Amino acid sequence: MSYLKEKILKDGIVLNNDVLKVDSFLNHQIDPTVMKESSNEFIEYFKDKEITKVMTIEASGIAPAIRVASQLDVPMLFAKKTEPSTLSNEDQYETNVHSFTKNKTSRVLVSKKYLAPDDKVLIIDDFLANGEAALGLIDLVEQAEAEVAGVGICVEKSFQPGRAKLEEKGIDIFSICRIASLENNAVTFVEEATANEEY
Amino acid sequence: MSYLKEKILKDGIVLNNDVLKVDSFLNHQIDPTVMKESSNEFIEYFKDKEITKVMTIEASGIAPAIRVASQLDVPMLFAKKTEPSTLSNEDQYETNVHSFTKNKTSRVLVSKKYLAPDDKVLIIDDFLANGEAALGLIDLVEQAEAEVAGVGICVEKSFQPGRAKLEEKGIDIFSICRIASLENNAVTFVEEATANEEY
Repeated sequence: MSYLKEKILKDGIVLNNDVLKVDSFLNHQIDPTVMKESSNEFIEYFKDKEITKVMTIEASGIAPAIRVASQLDVPMLFAKKTEPSTLSNEDQYETNVHSFTKNKTSRVLVSKKYLAPDDKVLIIDDFLANGEAALGLIDLVEQAEAEVAGVGICVEKSFQPGRAKLEEKGIDIFSICRIASLENNAVTFVEEATANEEY
Repeated sequence: MSYLKEKILKDGIVLNNDVLKVDSFLNHQIDPTVMKESSNEFIEYFKDKEITKVMTIEASGIAPAIRVASQLDVPMLFAKKTEPSTLSNEDQYETNVHSFTKNKTSRVLVSKKYLAPDDKVLIIDDFLANGEAALGLIDLVEQAEAEVAGVGICVEKSFQPGRAKLEEKGIDIFSICRIASLENNAVTFVEEATANEEY
């Protein structure tokens, strides 16, 4: 079992059927071993993809993304969230990302200077739920006519539609933890749910 | 000369007498070698301080902070910026941080769970200018009755008052690059400015 899964079972807090709180080790306080082990898993999965850049969105994607970028020895680029009202700027690629958790739409920007058509971009984020952040990042990469080499996720809520939306676009997704359900105040991972169905 | 200084001389863009743009390697796109070499310098300076936690503020402090925390094998905690209007929460320490660049005051929060009186906290940030972010983080650490072991900064604008404000509080500050001036469209580091005065 991956270290992140063990940590989720030990320290994750199921707030309700939709929300898993992991702020003691993943997105507020960050555990160095979770970062190290997660990065190793991402590298193992994506190592043959000739990644030229790792990309994420501020703020909680930055820690896992910089670790992966450092191990691959490529630059990391984080997209910035800003107010929808800010003036457009022709030096930037822009997209909108809606957060269902915060019920808020952010404008998300990257400088055109840092994405080129020959880039093979690995997108890393802490969570995949409705897929809005990942789809926004993919949109930015596609505006630059660069290639999305894959999407690496720490915690996927597989009972929400994010993965299906990315698969529809033909994206290669690797999630360290796939959560099938948070019902009955417990975390059930996808493998276990499948195993239970089989027996 | 540190790798970060070389990178500033090579790729930093002096926008005006106050603003140095480093978004190609430090706070938008992030260079893995800058992170590695900077982290090594922070560790070398603070290695005997028995650090138990590295702390920063989202978003651009996260990359250097997580690298230092990983090398020290301690948790990293990043303070979150939020709107001043959000309701207070007794589970959080709060402070206000004013950004002169953005002309905006943010409420900055950390969960009380992740700072304890026996913590020795190393604060890491990408920039030190007016000192507002560092002072806000110090305030949060002090609210928890924990100890500020030091402040590590990638780029200090030494012609602005941040360092003096921290020194007044008796804080141990280590900045990888100390910029004496951005005048005449050029970066002058403090050592050079001092050397020029001496000869």
